[in-house]
Amino acid sequence: MAGKVFFSVSMSLDGFVAPGSNATAARAMAEFSAPGTRDDQEVRRWMAQWMDLHQWIFPLRFFRENLGFGEGGEEGRDNDIARETFERTGASVMGRRMFDLGERSWPKEAPFHTPVFVVTHTGRDPWQRPGGTTFHFVNDGIEAALDQAREAAGDRDVRIAGGGATILQYVNAGLIDEFSITLSPVLFGSGTRLFEGVDPDRVALEPLRAEPSPRATHLTYAVRKR
Amino acid sequence: MAGKVFFSVSMSLDGFVAPGSNATAARAMAEFSAPGTRDDQEVRRWMAQWMDLHQWIFPLRFFRENLGFGEGGEEGRDNDIARETFERTGASVMGRRMFDLGERSWPKEAPFHTPVFVVTHTGRDPWQRPGGTTFHFVNDGIEAALDQAREAAGDRDVRIAGGGATILQYVNAGLIDEFSITLSPVLFGSGTRLFEGVDPDRVALEPLRAEPSPRATHLTYAVRKR
Repeated sequence: MAGKVFFSVSMSLDGFVAPGSNATAARAMAEFSAPGTRDDQEVRRWMAQWMDLHQWIFPLRFFRENLGFGEGGEEGRDNDIARETFERTGASVMGRRMFDLGERSWPKEAPFHTPVFVVTHTGRDPWQRPGGTTFHFVNDGIEAALDQAREAAGDRDVRIAGGGATILQYVNAGLIDEFSITLSPVLFGSGTRLFEGVDPDRVALEPLRAEPSPRATHLTYAVRKR
Repeated sequence: MAGKVFFSVSMSLDGFVAPGSNATAARAMAEFSAPGTRDDQEVRRWMAQWMDLHQWIFPLRFFRENLGFGEGGEEGRDNDIARETFERTGASVMGRRMFDLGERSWPKEAPFHTPVFVVTHTGRDPWQRPGGTTFHFVNDGIEAALDQAREAAGDRDVRIAGGGATILQYVNAGLIDEFSITLSPVLFGSGTRLFEGVDPDRVALEPLRAEPSPRATHLTYAVRKR
């Protein structure tokens, strides 16, 4: 049986999956690997908002484990959800911009531990990282990338990892089976909106689960074609 | 002890509290009182989306009761939440546009059953409706309207009833103590965004409750000043 295609993101209450502009995001991500912009107020603000958005995940045992930060961390429902999301994923698909940002900020042992298919316009040889993550570069469209990811995932699910624009392309193409949004108690006012440009006539949602935790609310929907 | 100032709205998963444009909303509302635009595709679409947004409330016993539709209707947590929101409210505040739309579409026995303070730029004598709703028109600003509503509400709470732009004015002025959002499983793609123009540097949120029901997710936050 083939797996599902899903995405799972943290979203602000006003609908953003990233604060600020893409340019600020790039500078902030560079900061992780090459410090030097920390005094830039816009970058500091971006990082504070980004940390707020993902505040539910940093204390978790799974998060620490997966990034090789060692033992310890919180257990409980948030942790179970993070772990289940990881374990169901047999392969990931991501956009080129997310890859470019991540290439500069992921640790050497990238946190996917599965094949990752990067939707791009340029060719590049596969890039294999320690710990089981191999990035494959697909330059013939989102459906081709998904086909390769399905093949690699086998019985497990394919995660559309991001960023927001790539996720929306898959949503509007009718290729998402279900998705999870962790709604964080923050307002950004500006940034990248997850559903900016969604085609509401193509997408009907069926709520599957809503699970509150002390730090966020986990919402899961199935996507039905209209 | 003075009551709280709150708002309570239904919001689409992509952050809209109303679909389409204000002009379409006005035509759709007119439809309730003066049928004739039902064949207009834009109005039909607006009404379908508006019904989807509020689908959780129409089957409820409280909803039927409050609008005088007679006995029957569903009980349960959704119904309790709708009733509690009504019962805590000692007075409401609304913007002029919401009043103008409602004036044409509310039943004779308007559904507030308390004083309602309308923020406007023009004077008008109070308008008393059967069933306990009296509309007062306040033309010296949102704080004056809130002061009068607090006075009228006594120990009970003041609800900022809407529309979206009026609610946001109160949020950005730091005058909201807490709010509830019923997140409906719909995507609009366009319309009135609840938090468009929010000042994220003024508003910090503390999650108080998240309650899933089969039809929607009820989220309640306290607002803390940063």
